[in-house]
Amino acid sequence: VPELRRDPLLNRWVILAEERADRPISRVRPGRSATPADCPFCPGNERETLPEIDALRDAGSEADAPGWRIRVVPNKYPALRPDPGPAPSGIDLFARRPGFGHHEVIIEGEAHTLSVTELAPDRLREAFRVYRERFRALSRITGLESAVLIKNVGLAAGASIEHSHSQLIATPVAPPSLETELRITREWSERTGRCLTCAILAAERSARERIVWRGENLVAVCPWAPRFAYETWILPARCESRFEATADRTLDELAEAASRVLGAIETRLEHPPYNYVIHSAPFRFDSRATYHWRLAIMPLITQAAGYEQSTGLYINPVTPERAARDLRAALA
Amino acid sequence: VPELRRDPLLNRWVILAEERADRPISRVRPGRSATPADCPFCPGNERETLPEIDALRDAGSEADAPGWRIRVVPNKYPALRPDPGPAPSGIDLFARRPGFGHHEVIIEGEAHTLSVTELAPDRLREAFRVYRERFRALSRITGLESAVLIKNVGLAAGASIEHSHSQLIATPVAPPSLETELRITREWSERTGRCLTCAILAAERSARERIVWRGENLVAVCPWAPRFAYETWILPARCESRFEATADRTLDELAEAASRVLGAIETRLEHPPYNYVIHSAPFRFDSRATYHWRLAIMPLITQAAGYEQSTGLYINPVTPERAARDLRAALA
Repeated sequence: VPELRRDPLLNRWVILAEERADRPISRVRPGRSATPADCPFCPGNERETLPEIDALRDAGSEADAPGWRIRVVPNKYPALRPDPGPAPSGIDLFARRPGFGHHEVIIEGEAHTLSVTELAPDRLREAFRVYRERFRALSRITGLESAVLIKNVGLAAGASIEHSHSQLIATPVAPPSLETELRITREWSERTGRCLTCAILAAERSARERIVWRGENLVAVCPWAPRFAYETWILPARCESRFEATADRTLDELAEAASRVLGAIETRLEHPPYNYVIHSAPFRFDSRATYHWRLAIMPLITQAAGYEQSTGLYINPVTPERAARDLRAALA
Repeated sequence: VPELRRDPLLNRWVILAEERADRPISRVRPGRSATPADCPFCPGNERETLPEIDALRDAGSEADAPGWRIRVVPNKYPALRPDPGPAPSGIDLFARRPGFGHHEVIIEGEAHTLSVTELAPDRLREAFRVYRERFRALSRITGLESAVLIKNVGLAAGASIEHSHSQLIATPVAPPSLETELRITREWSERTGRCLTCAILAAERSARERIVWRGENLVAVCPWAPRFAYETWILPARCESRFEATADRTLDELAEAASRVLGAIETRLEHPPYNYVIHSAPFRFDSRATYHWRLAIMPLITQAAGYEQSTGLYINPVTPERAARDLRAALA
């Protein structure tokens, strides 16, 4: 049974999940598999996953059988469990709580594709709608506070299965980095009466040099202090705190922006491993407070090593001004 | 010229260091090189590094020529520079400061070894003394506040060169994780009048189950909430805040403990990539305050992926109780 524990010296929670130790770690090959017969996410192999939670399916097709376009299943090696059993009691320095949460997998297409840039435009639009629906569904579950969607592409980025998929992890607490963001955002609002992200985006529009792409509702920007080379954020130009409340039209724009920016990154960096992550306000976020959800894209061309992980101070060899210039050129 | 920048939303500094982009990333092969003729850290190739800062040498041998046992050189692709030029001026949201600091490399032996467990015991003892001397030397430089020593072993752990070496990075500010630790430690001391780490170690001695090894002055323990499988800390049993003030006798014990614990990890996990890191109090730390320096060993058997890096919440598939039991068995 998974467990959350807090380090007494660093005040940092970790998830201990022994079941994760059993998951396959060698399924991702350097090249593409010509015969994906052994891929647990390909049509025909539905029995290799746990029973599906949701799917977009052809009329008349059956659950856990072919005929789907997008499929949502529970993670077979979950970091957290919907029913973690009774709470173990923490003593003084050694705080712990049950590893309660939901851990889902969203398979973004029936074809054995590696990157979302290979998906047909309509399939990618459907994928972002399924992301939103799953955020909505999890937001209604008692005890869950927050969810993060993560995509790992490539072994170096943490993918254990090749076939394009994302993971959605919902927790009973907001993760540490979101806590920090919300505190800073709140302090800024109290001081200025404005939204911090709106102020940042206004400054970016004046500076121009870190903006990669602008749409009707969204903007893609290389942030001022990126931890990773070519890190790019796609976010609403105006305040929109909760991803699950995003309008269809904005979601379609997000699918297009993600595909174009990732395409530019793949052109410029020769198909690097990458992660993308959707950050959103907590489910029961005060709607008067200000926040922008975002899709953060992090290509992996450098290796975060001992220093970064031990100090929290990341070393990035590419300035965001250079990254944005390169990506604008690749987009043009 | 490198630069430090702070993210306005996450309040997180990063180091932008474009010169790091040029460093070799393919020098580490899966197996050992039979002919290390192209190794820049082997004797005979001293001209491939920058001129040495310090070395342990045979009597009569010359700087930057063979005859050394341990050698300290500036990093050829530094994250920070001793003279970063004039301070760029940050404007409102976009804070920046010069990338001032020192970035050294300590080559721990003349032989082309990969892991410190292959070093002769006397060479390893010498290495830890050189670590201490470099902490001391950097602590005397105006404007430097703090140093961290990091070793990366194996490509997956971030090593760009195979030959056993460590990096020492000294910064004008304490890194974020050290800031957090010191704040928590100070708050605890103010509340209880005691040292937090002493209290943790007392609780660990009562619990017994996470202790791996105990010496005269040091203890090796798998921490309560480890981020990495088999993560192990070696630290003084009594308050000792600054690594540069460590006594010879304790340093010798540290060399022995590190070698034995790493040997147990290599036996148990079949020679995994690993990092080790020496955390120490800031150079001008209030000596009445309490802190324990530590050597943190982090084997890499799982891959920290998008989720961990984006949320700060790490998923670890091995409990510290199981890790400590395994390591005690391997040591016995």
